[in-house]
Amino acid sequence: MDQRGQSPDADYDGQRPSKRARRTPPPVESNGHTDRPPLSLSILAVEPVDEFILEVADFIHHHIMNKKDREGTIEVEAKVGILRENGSGTRVNLPVIVETILHPEYKEYHFESNMSPMQHRHFNTLLNKLKLASSQPGHPSSPLEYTHLHLVDTFYPAEGSGNKIRVTRDEKTKEVVACMQKKRLASLDIISPKRNADWRISVNVEVPVQMPIGTATFSRRKDRMSYTHEEFIIDLTQVTSTSGPNVKPEILHELEVELARPTYLFATALKRGDPNVPEAERSAFDELIRAFVNNARILVRNAPPDGWQ
Amino acid sequence: MDQRGQSPDADYDGQRPSKRARRTPPPVESNGHTDRPPLSLSILAVEPVDEFILEVADFIHHHIMNKKDREGTIEVEAKVGILRENGSGTRVNLPVIVETILHPEYKEYHFESNMSPMQHRHFNTLLNKLKLASSQPGHPSSPLEYTHLHLVDTFYPAEGSGNKIRVTRDEKTKEVVACMQKKRLASLDIISPKRNADWRISVNVEVPVQMPIGTATFSRRKDRMSYTHEEFIIDLTQVTSTSGPNVKPEILHELEVELARPTYLFATALKRGDPNVPEAERSAFDELIRAFVNNARILVRNAPPDGWQ
Repeated sequence: MDQRGQSPDADYDGQRPSKRARRTPPPVESNGHTDRPPLSLSILAVEPVDEFILEVADFIHHHIMNKKDREGTIEVEAKVGILRENGSGTRVNLPVIVETILHPEYKEYHFESNMSPMQHRHFNTLLNKLKLASSQPGHPSSPLEYTHLHLVDTFYPAEGSGNKIRVTRDEKTKEVVACMQKKRLASLDIISPKRNADWRISVNVEVPVQMPIGTATFSRRKDRMSYTHEEFIIDLTQVTSTSGPNVKPEILHELEVELARPTYLFATALKRGDPNVPEAERSAFDELIRAFVNNARILVRNAPPDGWQ
Repeated sequence: MDQRGQSPDADYDGQRPSKRARRTPPPVESNGHTDRPPLSLSILAVEPVDEFILEVADFIHHHIMNKKDREGTIEVEAKVGILRENGSGTRVNLPVIVETILHPEYKEYHFESNMSPMQHRHFNTLLNKLKLASSQPGHPSSPLEYTHLHLVDTFYPAEGSGNKIRVTRDEKTKEVVACMQKKRLASLDIISPKRNADWRISVNVEVPVQMPIGTATFSRRKDRMSYTHEEFIIDLTQVTSTSGPNVKPEILHELEVELARPTYLFATALKRGDPNVPEAERSAFDELIRAFVNNARILVRNAPPDGWQ
């Protein structure tokens, strides 16, 4: 009997034996003796593949493997925010009661990643606590690393392409940290009716380019608290945008988690499901995406209820 | 940092340590040496609680604990079928791409559990194969047991209650197997846009009653292939209904999985989250529902595409 997903990418994953411990003790009969074996995870003795995580993994894998130009690095990120209906601006509200992925052809909404300064502080406090806890002896996971970045982005029009050139500098030293064009490949939106926030997964390509000449069209200052945990970076950023000398700056607050090492992501994507590599390498991509989804869910579930700007 | 569900029932489940093995090997650097620890499941080193399974468990737990009359046994079952829009009769189609639970107040549809004879045969073949495989030495799970039942239900009106009395007899021996009133408490509907079938979880109470006197209003014959696996019964049933002597009988085909032992279900529900019992007993209810959901999903994912009657 088949418990596989229907995606071809999922085939290799179909019948893998469970690595979860059987958790339920045998029921104790009224005479105090146990006469049943421990509960299996299912009639197939394995847990069916998680349809949600598989969908996210298939989506990211598809866009990594189908990237047309070989240049540039893949950026995969999940932003925390609110999905709003285009007309009313109210939060997208479908007759469902648990988290689910919206159909990519459903276009009646937009995504707002801006949160309130209070929410920003809330996440800052939580992440600082977690950083502290994770550095204590005996903590079950690797410690979080923390960097406070002060960056300035300036944007320039690019010839023959719709994608602006972004020059990122360290605010203090003025050193150029990055000079690139960012191209959005695709995104996947998730509504979370039980939570105070929704989320969006994006796959982008960042192509390094030569320093542009000419005048920047606008600039923004990024005050970023950046937490690194294993293969992931969680960025909590206050963005101050300036579109001209006499225009009042706009201040936004954003939270995102992204894959820290595009080369590792790409290497695992190449080996996904390859029968000629050891099982651990074959499943490394899916395990990476599982942890990515888990991290995004943890952030979304911790979003406070004070409403989004 | 908190990764709990928002339901009060979920609180005890919030920070439990993961029992999954860490599955991803440390990435191998270009020099061939490994310099990173194995990938954790998340920044909290645990997997966030599965929102879907928790919702199902909370739903079933709520209706078990709030059962008003103390009489009767709880029946929890999942039926495989199609959710159809009331007007058009087409399958419910929301702009989502993975399995999700419909809002209980969304009423624009009905559930059809009837499948085609071909689909019935398909499931029969699959379950027979699984039964055979599960009885081989070295199979990772307990063997499936199989019984072929031939039953006749006759229905009688009941005084002072909307619920008919059902008398179930063994077709051959005429022995009375059950005499009861069945009352539906609640149901939860799940759309599965990636699959050929949807499903419905129902919680019912079955109250044993005295043998009715008078004339039966209608009867049905059930030809049931019943597969038992640990705490679950999977019933594949051909139902032939007769509403009168000159009316052509109606033949339906149904597939359902139900909890085999209501007393065990009730016992685990009572101890759910109880801090005064060992962890294994405290989580036994949730593990039982996890296996129940897994089994229903395996059946739904194996539904063939030939369309539902």
